[in-house]
Amino acid sequence: MSAETEFELPQLYRYHVFACHTQRPPTHPHGSCGASGAQALSDRMSKAIEAQGLNDVGFTTAGCLGFCNAGPLMVVYPDGVWYRATTPDDVDEIVMSHLKEGKRVDRLVMVLKRS
Amino acid sequence: MSAETEFELPQLYRYHVFACHTQRPPTHPHGSCGASGAQALSDRMSKAIEAQGLNDVGFTTAGCLGFCNAGPLMVVYPDGVWYRATTPDDVDEIVMSHLKEGKRVDRLVMVLKRS
Repeated sequence: MSAETEFELPQLYRYHVFACHTQRPPTHPHGSCGASGAQALSDRMSKAIEAQGLNDVGFTTAGCLGFCNAGPLMVVYPDGVWYRATTPDDVDEIVMSHLKEGKRVDRLVMVLKRS
Repeated sequence: MSAETEFELPQLYRYHVFACHTQRPPTHPHGSCGASGAQALSDRMSKAIEAQGLNDVGFTTAGCLGFCNAGPLMVVYPDGVWYRATTPDDVDEIVMSHLKEGKRVDRLVMVLKRS
């Protein structure tokens, strides 16, 4: 590696959450995170991250993450942990446990497999 | 850890790319990735990933990633590498080098700092 390309690349965020916001009609056979209440849960998470002062946690809405019938889905990087959070309490627990204290919330984890 | 919570959590994807698709009017003072051509570049990347048979690479569109004037932006996890790809050649190089061979494309990396 030449001197020119030697630079440090710290992760910008300690955690970066991507939450699916795909909205399909409620009757769509694929289902969707939006139709499962993703918007309100995302709003809650975004506000909770800010309220907890977690400046090193990024929160970004995302297009379809796949696995639509399992929604609402989010994935936390760099860990690559996929969560299905369906209630405000679920969201609060992910923020306080995983994003604040680094402890994965096992009960909400989706163990997904490649198709 | 109890037996109940002992489970493996492989990363679903070897790499997961999130590309901002935020679209603001061209005259908006914040700028936006959409106004900088993100859509066509994302389409190209998505097709290139498929054409290369990279089944362990995820590609997802994203809402605003911040740093809007620097777009079009994408971030590759779990590495946490942020790229500014502005041409079809840039996209192809990220696919062939980073996503296929695991070699970061230094010339396209955005070294971002927390505000």
